[in-house]
Amino acid sequence: MLECLVDGEITDQVSVADRGLLYGDGLFENITVLGGQPRFWQGHIDRLTAGCEQLGIPVTPQAVLLRELKTVAAGQPDCVVRIIVTRGTSGSGYAPSSPAHSNRIVSSHARTQLKEDYPTFGIRARLCDLRLGIQPALAGMKHLNRLEQVTARAEWQDPLIQEGILLDREDHVISGISSNIFLVYSGRLLTPRLDRCGIRGVMRGAILNAFRPLCEQRRLLLDMLPEAHEIFVCDSIHGVLPVTRIDHWEYEIGPVTREVQDWLNQQ
Amino acid sequence: MLECLVDGEITDQVSVADRGLLYGDGLFENITVLGGQPRFWQGHIDRLTAGCEQLGIPVTPQAVLLRELKTVAAGQPDCVVRIIVTRGTSGSGYAPSSPAHSNRIVSSHARTQLKEDYPTFGIRARLCDLRLGIQPALAGMKHLNRLEQVTARAEWQDPLIQEGILLDREDHVISGISSNIFLVYSGRLLTPRLDRCGIRGVMRGAILNAFRPLCEQRRLLLDMLPEAHEIFVCDSIHGVLPVTRIDHWEYEIGPVTREVQDWLNQQ
Repeated sequence: MLECLVDGEITDQVSVADRGLLYGDGLFENITVLGGQPRFWQGHIDRLTAGCEQLGIPVTPQAVLLRELKTVAAGQPDCVVRIIVTRGTSGSGYAPSSPAHSNRIVSSHARTQLKEDYPTFGIRARLCDLRLGIQPALAGMKHLNRLEQVTARAEWQDPLIQEGILLDREDHVISGISSNIFLVYSGRLLTPRLDRCGIRGVMRGAILNAFRPLCEQRRLLLDMLPEAHEIFVCDSIHGVLPVTRIDHWEYEIGPVTREVQDWLNQQ
Repeated sequence: MLECLVDGEITDQVSVADRGLLYGDGLFENITVLGGQPRFWQGHIDRLTAGCEQLGIPVTPQAVLLRELKTVAAGQPDCVVRIIVTRGTSGSGYAPSSPAHSNRIVSSHARTQLKEDYPTFGIRARLCDLRLGIQPALAGMKHLNRLEQVTARAEWQDPLIQEGILLDREDHVISGISSNIFLVYSGRLLTPRLDRCGIRGVMRGAILNAFRPLCEQRRLLLDMLPEAHEIFVCDSIHGVLPVTRIDHWEYEIGPVTREVQDWLNQQ
């Protein structure tokens, strides 16, 4: 961690009574900052705001968050800024306090250097054993309850495998562990609906917006993975990464994936 | 909060990089302390240890936890001590750090005074709209991912309703929001199996142990609720509370519930 503000104060500590710690009762965003400017800011702030409204957590004005982002990113033009918003501290028990509170934690981090050849030559993935639980009440949000992802990521240590593909309990493809997934079939871009589990990624949203006529959000069954012409995963930090292999299934890096990468490079 | 130790140091602050905050990557126990002694200590420590082993978090020696419990409870013979164990701080990403770390947070809290007539005259409950997701990989543990409970508890504010009853997505009765549930049928004690969701409560375990010949862990469908002869909920803090009403279904407080309360009073 480079710099950190908690509710606007310079500190890297939070109360042990924060509901973010006690219950995972909050949300987060990881934002790429390049040349001092956040990338896809509006997408991040829209998702954070929607999540706060859904959970009944007061929304912090985006001008405050942007100012704090720039404060913690000052002096390191290229970094990742994490914004965490929690329901604040409370007494005992699950009941949210009334009136509602929120705490915000804004911190900057060095960008983990991705091996440069991943965008060019693609990554290898595996199917995770863990199946995501189906929970429409929490689906889509980037909330702080992430033990499913931690447990799935602990399934392998082979450094040649860069991502795990998550299914739900009904054999639907949902996402990567820390990315969203797109399958290309006959030039069309298919990505899972995320109304029952998974996180609505900001990069996913930007791609859906930019390639609207080509895109379809739908249920994708496991059976469709081996039949895909191209597969890529995406997230706000690493961009668009072609998938060349999922377990024993192999994929070419095709023209649609390259077109999406070209679009992203021009943003 | 009365007193707090973080990894043995007197403080009520933790790092914002703690994985308990970032991902809910940890476990907790709320322990009743009476006359300076923890109640059902072995049950709590067994569940915490099992959870740590399942998540791959290093187990803190119970002598250390017991010493710290007594430290934070000193001077207040009757209180509740919360023990949180997290996977410690880590860099970015879901992957657990290797070698494995853990942080522990031990804090004491005033006992919330339960209205004295709840054990005697029972409580009212409601069926929650939220359905628990099915996730066998995390079921049973008292981990820090508790947004389902927070969301369910936010469904009502009527102070006359003391507990919410949680079903899973397949109409199975699972538990209360912060308690386990027992149904009495013809003198037998039925309680849900918790292999797919829910938390294996320490009080539930103690009752199953004490009343072994009468008890059965099984799938309980919603249909069975209105047919129950008696219903009670239980947890380590409030003990055994008869349920007299769930929405429009009404229940007598019967002899089996009283027998379980009598047993608990003698512990």
